[in-house]
Amino acid sequence: MHLPFYQEIIESELGKLNLPESPTGLYEPIRYMISLGGKRIRPALALMACEAFGKNHSHALKTAIGIELFHNFTLMHDDIMDKAPIRRSLPTVHTKWNTDVAILSGDALFVKSCQLIYESGIQHNKELMSAFLQTAMAVCEGQQWDMQYQAEAIISEQQYFTMIENKTAVLLACALKLGAVIGGADEKNADLLYDFGIKIGLAFQLQDDLLDAYPPNSEFGKKTGGDILINKKTFLLVKAYELADKKTKTALQFAMGSSQQSEDSKIQTVLSIFDTLRIKELANLEIQKQFDAAQASIRKINFTGFEPKDLIHFSELLMTRKK
Amino acid sequence: MHLPFYQEIIESELGKLNLPESPTGLYEPIRYMISLGGKRIRPALALMACEAFGKNHSHALKTAIGIELFHNFTLMHDDIMDKAPIRRSLPTVHTKWNTDVAILSGDALFVKSCQLIYESGIQHNKELMSAFLQTAMAVCEGQQWDMQYQAEAIISEQQYFTMIENKTAVLLACALKLGAVIGGADEKNADLLYDFGIKIGLAFQLQDDLLDAYPPNSEFGKKTGGDILINKKTFLLVKAYELADKKTKTALQFAMGSSQQSEDSKIQTVLSIFDTLRIKELANLEIQKQFDAAQASIRKINFTGFEPKDLIHFSELLMTRKK
Repeated sequence: MHLPFYQEIIESELGKLNLPESPTGLYEPIRYMISLGGKRIRPALALMACEAFGKNHSHALKTAIGIELFHNFTLMHDDIMDKAPIRRSLPTVHTKWNTDVAILSGDALFVKSCQLIYESGIQHNKELMSAFLQTAMAVCEGQQWDMQYQAEAIISEQQYFTMIENKTAVLLACALKLGAVIGGADEKNADLLYDFGIKIGLAFQLQDDLLDAYPPNSEFGKKTGGDILINKKTFLLVKAYELADKKTKTALQFAMGSSQQSEDSKIQTVLSIFDTLRIKELANLEIQKQFDAAQASIRKINFTGFEPKDLIHFSELLMTRKK
Repeated sequence: MHLPFYQEIIESELGKLNLPESPTGLYEPIRYMISLGGKRIRPALALMACEAFGKNHSHALKTAIGIELFHNFTLMHDDIMDKAPIRRSLPTVHTKWNTDVAILSGDALFVKSCQLIYESGIQHNKELMSAFLQTAMAVCEGQQWDMQYQAEAIISEQQYFTMIENKTAVLLACALKLGAVIGGADEKNADLLYDFGIKIGLAFQLQDDLLDAYPPNSEFGKKTGGDILINKKTFLLVKAYELADKKTKTALQFAMGSSQQSEDSKIQTVLSIFDTLRIKELANLEIQKQFDAAQASIRKINFTGFEPKDLIHFSELLMTRKK
């Protein structure tokens, strides 16, 4: 089954969460956050992984929802730290309410996600909690690297990959692993699927970096070069610093550092340096490399259920997505 | 054994936590928060409860540390919401670093506490996690009630008790319950000890309210009437509104609401209304009532280990404490 099939199941399950009515100041922001929607990629991966090992997706539904709630918790807190006013065209929680509300509702959302994952583990007599909590800690570390690196002029490629692996890839990988374990995968196969998830996660983030600077068409929602404006440490920027000669590096540093230029002029200067250094091509090569590594991991897996064609198809979609 | 015995064990165990060195921005604030110290009441209760059912306290040590870390997580986030600049005579985490750091390090501290409680449950083959997570959610709810009630002129006695039960009592009770379960208590006895903890927790918070307005001597660290200044919904204030006649209520409302008076004058006016209404005596009666109820709970418990004299002695200490 394809993504829309799983998305519908996930939305329906989220609608049945049955959070308490009061205190309203705690649960209303959680309901709002969930209602903002999203692609529900992580829970969909958990359901697909469960089926790939032969069990009906319904077995992994509670786990999938737990992971989606955890993801929403991280978004709620990250939005405060990133001072993001808008998420999916609507005000973020700390904008609509205030920072205190976003902190506390985020905490409660995290508790709820732990409850779902824990109960799901009990229900299926599987060890899910350790992997989940280890992932949760890694996600905190990834966000911290992101914040620390914002204060630095440039970071190495290795630092970049450590950051995005923790911030993005581990949760996708964890979703796959937990789904696989519930589906009946043994440890070896679950870990291979985790590896697949890490590679797909890295490719996913690289694609994100690329789309920001090189949107495929004008329908793409975000402003082109938004990451450049906020000096975000993207793969493109990291690679450009690595490859630039002395003169180009100085020009790049000047463009990133100066506040005396217009936003458009900053973006244009940096993009033209990217073009000179063929950064777009290099990013596409890196995405392909991660995708190939992902394919290598998945080929080693002994799927006991259906062929994992949904997973492969979905990972291709993530890679070739236009937004 | 008495509190100092357990405190020493807990401090030593906290010193062995072995948190990662990096990212420093994530783990340094956690180390700092832990180093601020505190009375370590919650973990001490867990250790005492374990021994009261016949097992050496060492069995409950991991659980106890998990609970203390959870408590520190709530303090780190609460300090942001309460805009508290100082904790135990030193800057709070969001003051020493910033709000983002306190949010994220708090999240990581919460993850770490979950890991310890979960591992402890596995190690002893006991169900600890559900009770812990349920408590964590209740603590979030308590903090939310506290924030919501700050915006209201007055709350009912029932609202007050719901707030302090969630904000303070459930975690003390949970510490006792988890310690008891690890010590070998059956569900009935563990739940009775939980009830004891709730009553002791309520008495503890009532005592806190009382000490703020009526410090026993000048050595008491805080400023007298700090709660009055910030219009905190203490038992004293709630009770005063409940008992005041129309004229006194108006005077109380004026004193609490007006910003045209000096701090000392506000405190003096409110304290003299408290005195007229004999609020101090009523608070002491309420504390005694909760303490008696706690004793009734503990008398029903079939302790399979040592006599629970440490627990009873400790609860007496909490009630008669001078700070």
